[in-house]
Amino acid sequence: MQLLKTTYTDFSLKFQTLVSDRREATVDVSGTVKNILADVKVRGDAAVKEYTSRFDHYHPPSLLLSPEFIAQRAAQCGAEVKAALELAASRIGIFHQKQLPQNIGYTDTVGVQLGLNWLPLSQVGIYVPGGRASYPSSVLMNALPAKIAGVERIVMAVPMPRGEINPAVLAAAQIAGVTEIYSMGGAQAIAALAYGTQSLTPVDKIVGPGNAYVAEAKRQVFGIVGIDSVAGPSEILVVADSQNHPEWIAWDLLSQAEHDPSAQSILITDSASFAEKVITTIDHILTNLPTQEVARTSWQQHGAVIVVEDLTESIPLLNQLAPEHVELCVDQPQLLASQIKCAGSIFLGRYTPEAIGDYLGGPNHVLPTARSARFASGLSVYDFLKRITYLECSQQALQTIGKAAVILAEAEGLPAHGGSVSVRLQ
Amino acid sequence: MQLLKTTYTDFSLKFQTLVSDRREATVDVSGTVKNILADVKVRGDAAVKEYTSRFDHYHPPSLLLSPEFIAQRAAQCGAEVKAALELAASRIGIFHQKQLPQNIGYTDTVGVQLGLNWLPLSQVGIYVPGGRASYPSSVLMNALPAKIAGVERIVMAVPMPRGEINPAVLAAAQIAGVTEIYSMGGAQAIAALAYGTQSLTPVDKIVGPGNAYVAEAKRQVFGIVGIDSVAGPSEILVVADSQNHPEWIAWDLLSQAEHDPSAQSILITDSASFAEKVITTIDHILTNLPTQEVARTSWQQHGAVIVVEDLTESIPLLNQLAPEHVELCVDQPQLLASQIKCAGSIFLGRYTPEAIGDYLGGPNHVLPTARSARFASGLSVYDFLKRITYLECSQQALQTIGKAAVILAEAEGLPAHGGSVSVRLQ
Repeated sequence: MQLLKTTYTDFSLKFQTLVSDRREATVDVSGTVKNILADVKVRGDAAVKEYTSRFDHYHPPSLLLSPEFIAQRAAQCGAEVKAALELAASRIGIFHQKQLPQNIGYTDTVGVQLGLNWLPLSQVGIYVPGGRASYPSSVLMNALPAKIAGVERIVMAVPMPRGEINPAVLAAAQIAGVTEIYSMGGAQAIAALAYGTQSLTPVDKIVGPGNAYVAEAKRQVFGIVGIDSVAGPSEILVVADSQNHPEWIAWDLLSQAEHDPSAQSILITDSASFAEKVITTIDHILTNLPTQEVARTSWQQHGAVIVVEDLTESIPLLNQLAPEHVELCVDQPQLLASQIKCAGSIFLGRYTPEAIGDYLGGPNHVLPTARSARFASGLSVYDFLKRITYLECSQQALQTIGKAAVILAEAEGLPAHGGSVSVRLQ
Repeated sequence: MQLLKTTYTDFSLKFQTLVSDRREATVDVSGTVKNILADVKVRGDAAVKEYTSRFDHYHPPSLLLSPEFIAQRAAQCGAEVKAALELAASRIGIFHQKQLPQNIGYTDTVGVQLGLNWLPLSQVGIYVPGGRASYPSSVLMNALPAKIAGVERIVMAVPMPRGEINPAVLAAAQIAGVTEIYSMGGAQAIAALAYGTQSLTPVDKIVGPGNAYVAEAKRQVFGIVGIDSVAGPSEILVVADSQNHPEWIAWDLLSQAEHDPSAQSILITDSASFAEKVITTIDHILTNLPTQEVARTSWQQHGAVIVVEDLTESIPLLNQLAPEHVELCVDQPQLLASQIKCAGSIFLGRYTPEAIGDYLGGPNHVLPTARSARFASGLSVYDFLKRITYLECSQQALQTIGKAAVILAEAEGLPAHGGSVSVRLQ
């Protein structure tokens, strides 16, 4: 963890280092992934099963989970967890319903009819990591926007190391309306979803988090299918004044740090003594935290505390960092929020810990990382919709605007473009 | 050109070959591009100038075009072309204005305030090819949606081989509100836009068409900046009954074919004799067409005519092909249009040649190619906007929904997530 003060003479330099800190692993797995993709493309199910056997130590007769298996395992999910998942699904559902856009259609002043229709994708794949990072909340956050967009076929791929699967993941899949589940992971799962196999019809788009192999496989199949953005390690930036309980803010910073040794938690405060209290509290909490190993590495290597003279100074810093999550733990958080230009999602006030958004606030928890909030956005129903535009000219309308098109076609040296218009003007 | 009939016993097989026809060049330029990107990243302007000198045979003292130079060259654009560009800009502007989305904001039943705000990107780069494929219409189609979205800084990169530039391209840039223009092209231009140089502040997203080097460079900088989709060769699918003038349809098919030897034009008709007439007319037009070399190669190598028994058969074929452009040259085109699920843009009726949409219909002419209309859409204001979601819980609201979040955090083995909520519930 590094402590910076804007009054330091070298602050600007140190802050730029923080902004350009690349926290992602840089192991090049592109060759391995390329081979796996090519193999699955040619040999299909047989290849996927071999990789599943090798990497997951699992040898199912069929990769597709049967309805009976899903029902039996999902039933092992505790009632309390299931009720919480249902509350989460309901809240996430309402928020994403409100995103559904309107079609556009109008007749203009010269009589041209034109517009834009939104349509759902037909079939998508949701990748869900297995093992420790197998989160039912990710299933809801990836599958529900697809369902609400109107996607008819939602295919989930989840690796089952040694045949094990988190019952809550299957319960979440049932709640979210997943239509098929395959026990497969890694690059081989992405290949199967993109190319299809004997037992799996290919999808049109693949979303969801995964390890370096999954991320690279998504990169390589991009164009054959659509993909969501490639997610990096999680980030939080907490802006807090001295009126906060140091303990609350300490927990907030640790809630990102425990995700991943490469995660990043940053506190901006206008009180040096408050900063000290938070730092001390974090050290105290870490001694008993079950996830202390990961959280401590993240906090020590990537954590930062920035002391400013006035909290308004936090805004330009924040917009440069473009963090995935922002908490504004102040009395009138809207005043700061209205100046934020680059962030994934904002949590306002003293009673909105970011973890609420991870599970059941309503907005999506799949958010842009690694400064991509400068140009990218969180997952939404828009990621599962496409737009088709249309245009219809009457004979009269073409007479009115056609000549200008012919002029431009000639200026671009494209005579057949011009010909297709002028032949209709005679 | 191949002629298929759905009544042929091998139709299904031949159609699948057509669907999976990959028309893109497969030259691997990734190594060359990687080196250029790395060089520009380290040496900045000096490297860009060297590549510009080597590839474009141009040695300007500054890559940034001066306002005087732009004004002087743009003034060379003829009045007729300039008026046509202004009409186009006006029509494109109205259509894209209508796309501007509404923010979402509401207080839910438990007192949580939440919503989603749309914001423009701050700065984007528009790549415009130089030389023969330097199209003013591309400038309008790429820059206007950015301008309308509210992007403040629109940076255009256009190579100027031997110092030459199409005046209409500069006129279009002025009309569209481009704020900076740099005379550079290729991978070096993409590198300069993504990384910045001594004289160029980097942008957040890069859009626009380009050759194989430009496309590969965009792929490689993706993540550091946003990019639009990587465009392939153009495509048109014309559905036409025998009531059309064969000549009109022939021109429409040739208007795509003249773009690129890899472009594809397909006709679906329910009349074998009409098909023959169109084929004969194409051969006739080609003998005098200035772009005949390109158009003939495209038509011979990738063109197809499919004769169906009934035009309703065209719909499933069309949805599999997912073409960039569709023309429905029939009397009630809406009947067919309503069944289309995968296409970039649709042109309805006998008086809407696709070229109208290339220039001034209103909808964008940057559209998904190579079957990506299954999951992708045309360029729009959405490509220049981002969404920030927000959430604000009152103390009471957190009391109501917090417990469920703690339960889910425990189920996922993330104790600090749970801690950040439960510490506020005491």
